[in-house]
Amino acid sequence: MMIVVMRKDATLKQIGSVIKTIEELGFRPHMSEGEEKTIIGVIGDERKVSKDALAVLPGVESVVPILKPFKLASREFKPDKTVVKLNGAEIGGERISVIAGPCAIETYDQVLEAAKSAKRAGAQILRGGAFKPRTSPYSFQGLGEEGLKILKSVGEKVGLPVITEVMTPELADLIADYVDILQVGARNMQNFALLEKVGKISKPILLKRGMMSTIEELLMSAEYIMANGNRNVILCERGIRTFEKYTRNTLDMSAVPVIQKLSHLPVIVDPSHATGERYMIAPLSFGAIASGADGLMIEIHPDPDKALCDGYQSLPLPQFEEMMAQLAAVAASVNRKI
Amino acid sequence: MMIVVMRKDATLKQIGSVIKTIEELGFRPHMSEGEEKTIIGVIGDERKVSKDALAVLPGVESVVPILKPFKLASREFKPDKTVVKLNGAEIGGERISVIAGPCAIETYDQVLEAAKSAKRAGAQILRGGAFKPRTSPYSFQGLGEEGLKILKSVGEKVGLPVITEVMTPELADLIADYVDILQVGARNMQNFALLEKVGKISKPILLKRGMMSTIEELLMSAEYIMANGNRNVILCERGIRTFEKYTRNTLDMSAVPVIQKLSHLPVIVDPSHATGERYMIAPLSFGAIASGADGLMIEIHPDPDKALCDGYQSLPLPQFEEMMAQLAAVAASVNRKI
Amino acid sequence: MMIVVMRKDATLKQIGSVIKTIEELGFRPHMSEGEEKTIIGVIGDERKVSKDALAVLPGVESVVPILKPFKLASREFKPDKTVVKLNGAEIGGERISVIAGPCAIETYDQVLEAAKSAKRAGAQILRGGAFKPRTSPYSFQGLGEEGLKILKSVGEKVGLPVITEVMTPELADLIADYVDILQVGARNMQNFALLEKVGKISKPILLKRGMMSTIEELLMSAEYIMANGNRNVILCERGIRTFEKYTRNTLDMSAVPVIQKLSHLPVIVDPSHATGERYMIAPLSFGAIASGADGLMIEIHPDPDKALCDGYQSLPLPQFEEMMAQLAAVAASVNRKI
Amino acid sequence: MMIVVMRKDATLKQIGSVIKTIEELGFRPHMSEGEEKTIIGVIGDERKVSKDALAVLPGVESVVPILKPFKLASREFKPDKTVVKLNGAEIGGERISVIAGPCAIETYDQVLEAAKSAKRAGAQILRGGAFKPRTSPYSFQGLGEEGLKILKSVGEKVGLPVITEVMTPELADLIADYVDILQVGARNMQNFALLEKVGKISKPILLKRGMMSTIEELLMSAEYIMANGNRNVILCERGIRTFEKYTRNTLDMSAVPVIQKLSHLPVIVDPSHATGERYMIAPLSFGAIASGADGLMIEIHPDPDKALCDGYQSLPLPQFEEMMAQLAAVAASVNRKI
Repeated sequence: MMIVVMRKDATLKQIGSVIKTIEELGFRPHMSEGEEKTIIGVIGDERKVSKDALAVLPGVESVVPILKPFKLASREFKPDKTVVKLNGAEIGGERISVIAGPCAIETYDQVLEAAKSAKRAGAQILRGGAFKPRTSPYSFQGLGEEGLKILKSVGEKVGLPVITEVMTPELADLIADYVDILQVGARNMQNFALLEKVGKISKPILLKRGMMSTIEELLMSAEYIMANGNRNVILCERGIRTFEKYTRNTLDMSAVPVIQKLSHLPVIVDPSHATGERYMIAPLSFGAIASGADGLMIEIHPDPDKALCDGYQSLPLPQFEEMMAQLAAVAASVNRKI
Repeated sequence: MMIVVMRKDATLKQIGSVIKTIEELGFRPHMSEGEEKTIIGVIGDERKVSKDALAVLPGVESVVPILKPFKLASREFKPDKTVVKLNGAEIGGERISVIAGPCAIETYDQVLEAAKSAKRAGAQILRGGAFKPRTSPYSFQGLGEEGLKILKSVGEKVGLPVITEVMTPELADLIADYVDILQVGARNMQNFALLEKVGKISKPILLKRGMMSTIEELLMSAEYIMANGNRNVILCERGIRTFEKYTRNTLDMSAVPVIQKLSHLPVIVDPSHATGERYMIAPLSFGAIASGADGLMIEIHPDPDKALCDGYQSLPLPQFEEMMAQLAAVAASVNRKI
Repeated sequence: MMIVVMRKDATLKQIGSVIKTIEELGFRPHMSEGEEKTIIGVIGDERKVSKDALAVLPGVESVVPILKPFKLASREFKPDKTVVKLNGAEIGGERISVIAGPCAIETYDQVLEAAKSAKRAGAQILRGGAFKPRTSPYSFQGLGEEGLKILKSVGEKVGLPVITEVMTPELADLIADYVDILQVGARNMQNFALLEKVGKISKPILLKRGMMSTIEELLMSAEYIMANGNRNVILCERGIRTFEKYTRNTLDMSAVPVIQKLSHLPVIVDPSHATGERYMIAPLSFGAIASGADGLMIEIHPDPDKALCDGYQSLPLPQFEEMMAQLAAVAASVNRKI
Repeated sequence: MMIVVMRKDATLKQIGSVIKTIEELGFRPHMSEGEEKTIIGVIGDERKVSKDALAVLPGVESVVPILKPFKLASREFKPDKTVVKLNGAEIGGERISVIAGPCAIETYDQVLEAAKSAKRAGAQILRGGAFKPRTSPYSFQGLGEEGLKILKSVGEKVGLPVITEVMTPELADLIADYVDILQVGARNMQNFALLEKVGKISKPILLKRGMMSTIEELLMSAEYIMANGNRNVILCERGIRTFEKYTRNTLDMSAVPVIQKLSHLPVIVDPSHATGERYMIAPLSFGAIASGADGLMIEIHPDPDKALCDGYQSLPLPQFEEMMAQLAAVAASVNRKI
């Protein structure tokens, strides 16, 4: 259902013409005359028509959609929470899932050291970047397939499922051969060709919110993946762009309860990218779990001062392990476990 | 009129309870059953009731207002454009009004020199700050009443009406004795005590958009002034806060056509404060006039490098005069004059 | 210290002129020639000079401040955390402080009922609005002094210190007679006349962040109050304005660790105003405390469906009491108490 | 050159360690001791090192970059303005370039009618979408290659070069066979795989600013294309995301003078997408040209009420032709022609 609001000075002929158009589009019109304005309800499934078709008619002031534009991703469609199952881990259930690892895969030893720490501390999934999106063409772009091999091999050795980012449709199948979850990064949240491609892959997808995207658009992008057949989507809040300058982005913590209400998909938080500063990771991780997030994504590094990428925001391993110990207490206080 | 959207799972009892409440509030309900959801129109003047009274009822998903929240400031209330008349100038008519002068009043000679240049170049109104809002308690705070005396005296000497900012209700009457227009600054756009006070003064008010305010809120603040009796309100776009870093604020040029459509009040643009950089003032002044603005507010200074305030964004007098010559051509191209 | 970056094509004469100006302003210059550009350090306390004085000189590309613009509010000035002490409560210590009460004071019984619930649940301070800032001149504006009397009387009866908002300097002394803490609201965060006035009052001030103010500006406004003599300032994050539409504002949770790092002043979070929706208050309250906030400010109402103001975002008393029980567990998990 | 700001309490050992690291990275350090803080200049081309390498060292408060991160796109690298030459048109010269056409290619007749109107009115380039990025998987996705054929054929018939959007690297070569300019859309501004691919194509690229990207990031994305070999890049401002609700996005008009100052690349403005409302297109087009833009991109349609896409913001042909007549006068007022 949509609502068409007529202008105060709309003529009867204009109102009649709107009603006729509604009927031609296959909907049923429903008029209400107010003291100042007439409004017309459009009865039917509005997702099947663009609101523009009515908004452009003479005498129309505005068109207000009533239905949400996403469906498969909505709680109304599937009231029970989705639990994404992996080889040896799950996201969206009673346990909190922590995804940890280095920003970029540099060497086997670096990944192994981080992975052992992650495992020891209770993280469930190992992350590492092989193909890196960089705003500057002059920055380090990642090891490519060589990195995928390292990641897979380390994951098997320590017994953790692995995740990496896919940036372009043609690499999706290759990457899916190496990892347990594919990540669609914030800059690609509306790369529709990529969303369609990963929608046809049989592995779970972690979809990061674009730093310029609304929660509704995040859910629409999840809908793209789901409409192509893949129902195992995990959402990730990683900060949005605002005028505030002390943080790289503004972590939108309220996205957690909003998504939990509107959608059945699990939602995790990435405090490393949101803030860009190491000292905020522990407090905001505690805050995310207490706010109801299903998990966290955290950058860790055996020697952050020498990291090729994002060292500034990576936690050293001892700090990470200390944080995880306290995180268990926070999780327990909101009836979750690690 | 408002629209109450019921949740998909709302019970008949909940719908009945909403209808009863609407009637108790003195409105008429109007039901439309859609395929997925029921919506109920609330017929009457919604400005008389808070939407919260309905939004909190069980089974209600959301409440959508249809009427605009401002009235006296709207084009629907007064279709003809308001022309604010001053001693020797007018704002909102065929002529473009340029308000020029220094950020802060420093000395009689400084203001006089700026005023002569303004007059020579075709500006119609002289500005100058006597009481300065400063984000730091350690910055220069203005000359106070001494500054008002200088401004009035220079205005009379060169034959230009004058404008200055009022920051607090208790100074409004004093300031009104000295100037032809009172300015309410961006940081005070929602200082409601101040809006009420200037609403009771008989001089025109220039109301600047807060850098964090929507156009609707700007119009609501104009409504505050008008509801207190003062109908001579001039609106001023001066940039809003965004994530962009190359400019101090982002000049929202589309506010010009939006305000011209929604309201009968004149609207001017302040490119000096919006951008904070001298080199952008001329191009954006031309852009503002071509976009339909009724005028401009520009900071000029005889010796910007020694200004006590905002020298960085003030135009030197020769540059200002050169710009004004070209501005006349731009104005003519959109059928306006200086 | 400031850094002056010269343009790539700056002449030696221009560089010399910048150095001369730096010396005239009472600072020491310090040159570094880079491969592409020359930069000049300005040694001394930059808070004593505007960067504009240098930015306008020919050949200067930009001026970069190095010192933070606030001083009294900074951790560098006072490394130990400030604990604001009240009659029977404190903010900033080991205990979490919860401020609860209705948006607007309506009747003695309404406030009493809310206050009893607040006390029972472990809140330490009672809030209630007597003078209300409303964006519309047609909305309920509060009971005024009659409301203050009710608030004081109820506070004494149940044994809770009380807080209310002050909107204009001339009412500050009157309000200070009735309450234990004065609140400066988000819309008045840069009402400098008001900041100066409350800086001269001997009661603590709760300063809310403007919804489009940076954290630095919040700290500058605290500096205004402190520079006028009042060192008992409590900061409050209440959401900032972004493009996201599912929440009224975006709660900037990272402001908590940022402020804890930069300043010694206590910081609390107001999830009611930040989100505007009742269902998010509990999760975000837990999140705020887990992120390190010193307290919360929450709107509660005995009968939210009939509230004259903000009923939509007010918690019913039983929900509030239930939330407080779980909050104690969350606080304990980060080594705090209620 | 970069500036490293040390914390107030940094030890001599920490300062020494920073200096050593700077030298190890191949730069020269340059110390300045201020009254409160020590800062260290890093002399060399900072684009060759990440600032993180220094920011993570103990005792470092912050690292301030001084060089701009883009090079090939900068005015410093190429002071003369770039004029992009096409078969029968050019962008960036004295003439204003108007790109006009329908949002989506629907039929040969629809495109032909729009193209004839564009030609008649003085537009120089014909646009039309064949592959459409849509936020909803349920919306019309474009005609694909069939659309490209129509566009090319109509362009040849009326004698206008043509432009269409490319959304994914693997389609770039195909699309380049049909059109004269390839457009990279706002949602793909940081699709780095796509930027690299179009950097290797020999046709000009129109790069639209992401709706939440900074101007610096836009220039960095242009740098990506240029670093891959393609120097014919046209930049396009199309509105950024802010809190304002009366417009779909906020057209950032100041991007025009900023880009003209920082870069030699031509810059055009798209008022159709920026505002999403037909009534604002003419005033903001005049404003853009008066502000110094090199051209415009405008959606037009023979029958906007029946458009499959964006009808709401498309100009009907007679309105477009009328607007173009006045645009010539505006262009002349700032010494440009159509």
